[in-house]
Amino acid sequence: MAEFTLHPRLATDSAFVADWPLSRVLLMNDARYRWLILVPRRARAVELFDLDAADRAVLMEEIARASRMLKNLTGAPKINAGALGNLVPQLHVHVVARSPGDPAWPGPVWGHSPAVPFDPATRDAFIHEVVNAR
Amino acid sequence: MAEFTLHPRLATDSAFVADWPLSRVLLMNDARYRWLILVPRRARAVELFDLDAADRAVLMEEIARASRMLKNLTGAPKINAGALGNLVPQLHVHVVARSPGDPAWPGPVWGHSPAVPFDPATRDAFIHEVVNAR
Repeated sequence: MAEFTLHPRLATDSAFVADWPLSRVLLMNDARYRWLILVPRRARAVELFDLDAADRAVLMEEIARASRMLKNLTGAPKINAGALGNLVPQLHVHVVARSPGDPAWPGPVWGHSPAVPFDPATRDAFIHEVVNAR
Repeated sequence: MAEFTLHPRLATDSAFVADWPLSRVLLMNDARYRWLILVPRRARAVELFDLDAADRAVLMEEIARASRMLKNLTGAPKINAGALGNLVPQLHVHVVARSPGDPAWPGPVWGHSPAVPFDPATRDAFIHEVVNAR
């Protein structure tokens, strides 16, 4: 059975937050948003239908958990969730807190404009909040 | 208990395909893509965490079913799935067949450029294909 390894592009663009039961949780390195990425730790998964139904159910609960967490931590009026993978085929799900006035609002964040990297202290403080959120 | 009614913007932008166990299935009226929209028939749901866990599991299976169906019908190399709702708050999930060379590739389809309406015969033929797909 092939082992899961994180796609190098995802590793470059994000910071490690936690391993949940199915997914590796990453923080996108873009200070303009609070943006988590869930990567199911399953080798070779590209589409949702590459997971079995049990994994899909867990993934949905992890997406809902990340969504509620971002809502609670940021107070953002809307959460966006998306699995695109046009550039990075490894299955991954973006979960992003969105607010009127953010740089891409009301459009999608993907492909909008280059990321603005976090300063490390802000990044680590937010990761700490996520890790300690209920 | 409030009754489900489809948001008027979704009704305007799409055609009815089918009612699956949880979701109303719509075809986005944009001839450049094969693009389904799943709308859980639950009044007042906005975020995934507004559904209960049982509904969420069904929704995930319906997203996977729509994804596999679009993959089989179109042969597209990638399926995109997304729940945004920045403009239309009613919870709805886009499932879109994507290919290099489509107008928005490799970016997201949302907010890219105005839709190009289907001619009715092409639209109805594709709806027929979806309804009869296994």
